[in-house]
Amino acid sequence: SMSLTEAPARPAAHDIDRTAIDTIRTLAIDAVEKADSGHAGAPMAMAPVGYTLWQRFLRYDPDDPSFPNRDRFVLSAGHGSMLLYALIHLAGVKATDGAAKPLDRPSITLEDIKNFRQLGSPTAGHPEYGHAAGIETTTGPLGQGAGNSVGMAMASRWLAARYGEGLFDFNVYALCSDGDMMEGVSSEAASLAGHLRLSNLCWLWDDNTVTIEGHTELAFDEDVAERFRGYGWSTLVVDDANDCEALARAFETFAITNDRPTLIVVKSVIGYGSPHKQGTSKAHSDALGAEEVRLTKEAYGWPPEAQFLVPDGVHQALGEPMRARAKTLRAAWEAARATLKRDKPELDAELGLMAARHLPADWDKHLPRFDADAKGLATREASGKALNAIAKAVPWMIGGAADLAPSTKTLIDGADSLEAFSPGGRNLHFGIREHAMGAIANGLALSGLRPFVATFLIFSDYMRPPTRLAALMRQPVVYVFTHDSIGLGQDGPTHQPIEQLAALRAIPGFCVIRPCDANETVEAWRVAAERADGPTALILSRQAVPTLDRSRYASAEGLRRGGYVLAGEGEPTPDVILIATGAEIGLCVAAAETLEGEGIKTRVVSLPSFDLFEAQDLGYRHSVLPPAVKARVAVEAAAALGWDRYAGPEGEIIAMRSFGSSAPAKDLMQHFGFTAEAVVAAARRQCHRQ
Amino acid sequence: SMSLTEAPARPAAHDIDRTAIDTIRTLAIDAVEKADSGHAGAPMAMAPVGYTLWQRFLRYDPDDPSFPNRDRFVLSAGHGSMLLYALIHLAGVKATDGAAKPLDRPSITLEDIKNFRQLGSPTAGHPEYGHAAGIETTTGPLGQGAGNSVGMAMASRWLAARYGEGLFDFNVYALCSDGDMMEGVSSEAASLAGHLRLSNLCWLWDDNTVTIEGHTELAFDEDVAERFRGYGWSTLVVDDANDCEALARAFETFAITNDRPTLIVVKSVIGYGSPHKQGTSKAHSDALGAEEVRLTKEAYGWPPEAQFLVPDGVHQALGEPMRARAKTLRAAWEAARATLKRDKPELDAELGLMAARHLPADWDKHLPRFDADAKGLATREASGKALNAIAKAVPWMIGGAADLAPSTKTLIDGADSLEAFSPGGRNLHFGIREHAMGAIANGLALSGLRPFVATFLIFSDYMRPPTRLAALMRQPVVYVFTHDSIGLGQDGPTHQPIEQLAALRAIPGFCVIRPCDANETVEAWRVAAERADGPTALILSRQAVPTLDRSRYASAEGLRRGGYVLAGEGEPTPDVILIATGAEIGLCVAAAETLEGEGIKTRVVSLPSFDLFEAQDLGYRHSVLPPAVKARVAVEAAAALGWDRYAGPEGEIIAMRSFGSSAPAKDLMQHFGFTAEAVVAAARRQCHRQ
Repeated sequence: SMSLTEAPARPAAHDIDRTAIDTIRTLAIDAVEKADSGHAGAPMAMAPVGYTLWQRFLRYDPDDPSFPNRDRFVLSAGHGSMLLYALIHLAGVKATDGAAKPLDRPSITLEDIKNFRQLGSPTAGHPEYGHAAGIETTTGPLGQGAGNSVGMAMASRWLAARYGEGLFDFNVYALCSDGDMMEGVSSEAASLAGHLRLSNLCWLWDDNTVTIEGHTELAFDEDVAERFRGYGWSTLVVDDANDCEALARAFETFAITNDRPTLIVVKSVIGYGSPHKQGTSKAHSDALGAEEVRLTKEAYGWPPEAQFLVPDGVHQALGEPMRARAKTLRAAWEAARATLKRDKPELDAELGLMAARHLPADWDKHLPRFDADAKGLATREASGKALNAIAKAVPWMIGGAADLAPSTKTLIDGADSLEAFSPGGRNLHFGIREHAMGAIANGLALSGLRPFVATFLIFSDYMRPPTRLAALMRQPVVYVFTHDSIGLGQDGPTHQPIEQLAALRAIPGFCVIRPCDANETVEAWRVAAERADGPTALILSRQAVPTLDRSRYASAEGLRRGGYVLAGEGEPTPDVILIATGAEIGLCVAAAETLEGEGIKTRVVSLPSFDLFEAQDLGYRHSVLPPAVKARVAVEAAAALGWDRYAGPEGEIIAMRSFGSSAPAKDLMQHFGFTAEAVVAAARRQCHRQ
Repeated sequence: SMSLTEAPARPAAHDIDRTAIDTIRTLAIDAVEKADSGHAGAPMAMAPVGYTLWQRFLRYDPDDPSFPNRDRFVLSAGHGSMLLYALIHLAGVKATDGAAKPLDRPSITLEDIKNFRQLGSPTAGHPEYGHAAGIETTTGPLGQGAGNSVGMAMASRWLAARYGEGLFDFNVYALCSDGDMMEGVSSEAASLAGHLRLSNLCWLWDDNTVTIEGHTELAFDEDVAERFRGYGWSTLVVDDANDCEALARAFETFAITNDRPTLIVVKSVIGYGSPHKQGTSKAHSDALGAEEVRLTKEAYGWPPEAQFLVPDGVHQALGEPMRARAKTLRAAWEAARATLKRDKPELDAELGLMAARHLPADWDKHLPRFDADAKGLATREASGKALNAIAKAVPWMIGGAADLAPSTKTLIDGADSLEAFSPGGRNLHFGIREHAMGAIANGLALSGLRPFVATFLIFSDYMRPPTRLAALMRQPVVYVFTHDSIGLGQDGPTHQPIEQLAALRAIPGFCVIRPCDANETVEAWRVAAERADGPTALILSRQAVPTLDRSRYASAEGLRRGGYVLAGEGEPTPDVILIATGAEIGLCVAAAETLEGEGIKTRVVSLPSFDLFEAQDLGYRHSVLPPAVKARVAVEAAAALGWDRYAGPEGEIIAMRSFGSSAPAKDLMQHFGFTAEAVVAAARRQCHRQ
C-alpha cells in the first residue's frame, strides 16, 4: 500500500496544499467513522474548494473570528459540517467569549473533532451557530444558508453605505449542494440577489450529480447556470474540484465582477477517493467502513492506519496566509474606525451599540400612547406607528414586507428603499418571496442589524423553516404578521389563519404576542425591541379594535408579563374568568359589562403571549388565573389547540373548529360565534354549572 | 359618453368576442364594486386571455364539468377569481351533484356573481374547490395553483400510460401572476415539470409589471423566460394581452410542442381600461369607485350605468364552440372507454372505482401483521411494508419522497420510477423540493389518484401551505413524515422536530397519526387509505420500537378511535394513567410494569391521534380517560402544546421544552428525560400528590 512518502511526485510547492486538503478529507472520514454517523462524501469532494478559498481568498482573522469586516463563509450544505470543522480547526480559529472577544484557546480542537456528533461537543451533526467561533450560521435544512448569505451580503452593503466602505466591504461565500439549488427558498433569494446586484456574493455549487435517491438525473437536470443568468448572475464553471488553480481563477473573476453576484459551478466527485463509493449515492452519508477507509487513505497516499492525523505544516499552510491578509485588513479597519470616531463620533458610538446588541438610550422616547377610543384602530395601524417611533431612534433597524408593506403598515416613513442603487435604504422590498425573506432576515440579524419582516399571518406558513432557525440561533428578528384571523373578512379561508398561532407558539424560544389594542401593540413592540436574544412575532389585526380606556382597565404595561388582569382585579375570587387575546378582548370586555350588570363577578384576563406568561413565576400566574376559579371562558378566533391549559377541563373554549369563509368580517364573526352575546352565554353556562 | 352602439367600428366577426371580453371585465368591476372588496385589475387585464383560451382551445364540456379527460384551467392567480367566475357563468357550466354528475342548473348564476364574497355564496374571495363546478382547485396563496398544475399534468400522463391515450390526453393551463413567478414553490414545480418534459402543461404569466408595493422593478427584474429555458421549458411572448390572434398563435404553438412545457409571457396592463388606475398598483385591488367605474365602462364603449350586464349572444359566443369541441371529445372518449371495457374490463372497473374514490374489494388483504418482538422495528419500516401491501391492491396509489425514499421507506417494490420516458411509473422522485411535492400531490389527488409523499417530519415545515390546502380541499393525500423526534439522533436540532406535531394537529380536518409500534402503523395506514375525503399524516420513528405483544396488550385496532386503553383496562379507576404516542409508548409500558410491581394500579393509554380521538363520543373518551382520575403522566418527545387537554391541570407532561441536540439517540433520550425511570418517577409524584 502507498504511504505519504510514497505518494506520486508533484511540484514541491503544492505538496503541503495537497497534504492539507487530504487532511481535511481524512479528518472528515475519521470523524464520521468514529461517530458511525454523518456525511464525509461532501467534505471529501469539496476539501480543495474550502481550502483554496480559505487559504488564498477569505479575508478572515483566525485570531479574531468576530472581526466585523470579515468575509463570511456559509456552509449551506450543512450536512458537510466536517468540512467546516476541519477548516476551523486547521486555520486555528480562536474561541470567543460571550462578548465575541477572542480567547486564548482554539474554537475547535482535534478532541472536538474526535467527539463529532456527541452530546455537548461543539461539533454537532450540522453546524450550529454559537457552538464554535467560525460557524457563521446554523445550516442543514437545505437552502437556508444560501438565503442567509443574501442577507449577509445585503448587510455588507448596508453597513458600507452607513458607516463607510473603508469599514465594511466584506464578501459572502456560500457553499451549496444540489439540494440548495433545488429548494425554492434559494431560488427566491437568488432572484433578489440578482435584482440587488450583490456583486459581493459568491455561491459555490457542488455539482456532484448525486443525491440520496441516486443520480440527479432522477429529478434534476435543469441548466442551473442558465437559470442563474436569468436571475442576473454571473456564472463560472470549474471542471474539476481538485483543480485549485482553476478555482483560484474563478475566485479572482468573482473579485473583479462588480455588477452582479457570481455562481461558481464546481464539478466534483462525491466521496472523492473512495474506490467503491465515490461518485455514487452511497458516498453521501454514513461511515465508509474500516476497509473502505483504509482503501481511501491509500488512494490519497495517506498512512492507512493513521487516525485524525494532522501532518506537520498543515496548520501553518492554512493559517499563516490568512493571518497575513488579516493583518492588512485589520490595519485598514482600525484606521478607518479611528477616522470615523474622530469625524463622526455618533456613528462610531452607533457601531459600538450595534456590536453589543444594545439599543440607544431613550430609544423608546418616541413611542406613541393612544387615547381611549371606542372606534379604535387596527393593531396593524398602531404597529406601524410604534415601528416608526423605534426606527427613528434605532437607525440600524431595517426591514420590509413580502410585497405587502401598504397592508402590513411596515414602511419606515421618509426612508429610502433598499435597492441596488441605494444599498443603505431601510425599506426592503422582498417581493412575493416570504421564505427568502425569512432566511435573509436571519442573515441581516447575524450581521448585527435589527431586521423586521412582514406579511399576512397566513403566509407565515411559507417561511416556517427560517422562523424556526431564528429561534434556534436566538436572533432578534421581528415578524409583523397582520390579518390575523377570520376578522380579515372577504379574502376567505385561503387567507384566514386558523392554525398559525398555535404553530408559532409551539416553537421553542419564539416569542409570540397578539396584542388586544393600540396600547398593547406599543408594549408588544417594546418587548420585541428589547429582546436582543431571540425572535418575536407580532400578531396583528386587519380590522379596527377599540382602544381601551386604561384609566378604567389595567395598564397595557401588563403585556410584558404575557397575561394580566385587565378588568375585575379587585375581586380575588370572581364568578367567572374571561380570557382572550387580540381583537377578541373587545368581546370579553363587552361581555363583562353585561355579566356584571347581571351581578356576575367577572374577571377579564388579557393573555397576549403564552410564552411571556409561562416565564412568570407560579405565584403571579395563579394571581391572574386563580386555580380555584374553574368557571372560565377562553376566546380566540383561531385553533383551540393549547387553550385547555388556561380554560381548564371545566372551562369553555370559543375557538375556530374549521376553516373560515369568505364574507364581510362582521358576518363571519357572527357566523362563527365570536360575539359578546356568545361570550355572555358561555359565561352564564359556566356559572350555572359550578 | 360612448355606448355599445357607438363603439368604434371593428370587424363584425370580432364584435361579439370583444363584447364578451368586456362582459368579463365589467362583471369583475361590478362584482368588486358591489362587494366593496376584491381584485378586478387582473380580470380586466386577462379577460382576453381567459376568453380566447376557453372559447377556442380548452377541451371542456360545460354540460359535464367533471368529464375526466377535460383540459384543466387553473387560476393560480386566485385573487383574480372574478375572471374564473365570469368564464364559468358565461360558458354556462352546469352545477354538479355530490357524485360529480351534472345537474340542470348553472354552476354560477348572475345572482351568485352579484353575491361575490358574501357568506354562503359559491363566489368566494378566492376560488374554493368544491364551491362551484369549474373550479379545479383552491387558489389564492401564490404559487400553489402553479404547483397543482404540474401534478395534474403528471396525472394526465400517468392516466394515459395506464388506461390509454385514447382516454386521457388532457392539457393543463395555469394562469400565473408575478407572485406565482416569484414564489419558490413554483420554481421547484417548474424545474420538475421541465425535467419530466410535460409538454401538456402551459403556464400563462400575466406580465403586468405591477405588484402591491408598486412596479415590479422594486424587487423583480429577472429574465423569467431565460430562467424557464434553464428549466427546459419552451417560452413564448405575447406582446399585448388584447391581441387575441397572437394569443391563439401561442396556444397553437403550445399544442404542437411535444417535448417540453410551455410558458407564455403575456404582457398586460393591470386594470386595463381604467383611465386613472390602469397600469398602476392602485388597480390591483379594491373597488374602483363609482366615477372610475363609469369612466372605465365608457372607455370600453359600455353603457356606463349598466350593472352586471351580459349582452345578448355572449353566452353563446363562449359556450357554443366549447360544446361543439366537447361533442367530438366525448365521442372519442366513449368509444375508447367502450373498447377498454371490452378488452380490459379490469382496467375499466378500476377507472370506476377511482372516479368514485372507492378502494378495491380486499384492498387490505396483503396488510401485514407483526409478531411481538422486544427489539421490534422502526415504525417507518413497518410503514414501508404496509404501504407496499396497499400499493399492490390499489394501482392508482403512487408517490414518493423529496429525495429521501431510502430513509422514509416509501419505494413501491418492483414499480418503475415516474420519469419523462416512463410516465406511468409509480415511484415519484420529487427531488429536494418539499413545497412543490405538496402542491403536486394536491394536483394528483384532484385528478383522482391516491398520492403519498414523504420526507422527514422536520421538513413538513417546508410544505405547510399545500398541506393546509389538502385539508381545506379535503383531498386524500397521505404524508409519510419520518424521523419524528430527537430519537433520530445525531443529525441534531436542525433535523429534530419539536413543534411540528402540534403545528400539524392544529390544522382543521387534517388527520395526524403517530403510531406506537409496527401493528399500530399498519392500522394507521388502514385509516389513511380508507379516508377518501381528507389528508392524513403518518408520524413515524427512525429508531426501532418494540412490537407489543397484542395478546397481552389491547389490539392495535384501537388506533381507529384515536386513543385507547392499551394496558390496565380491567381497572376502571386506576391510580395513575400514563398517556403517550409513538415511540414513547414503549417507556410507558415499561414504567407500568415497574409501577404495577409497586402496587400502583396503572393504566397506559395509547393516543396516536388527537383528532380521531376527539371525533369519538364523550362516553368513549371518558371511558379511556376517566375524568375522576387526575393522576396522569403524558409523554411525548415533542412540544407540550396541546397536551394539557389530556394531562389535565394536575397531571405532569414530559415533553420537549427546548430544541434538541446532536448526539446518539440513547444519550438524547436520557438527557431530555425520556426514560422509563423518569415516567415512573413522575407517576409516583402524581400518586403521592393525590
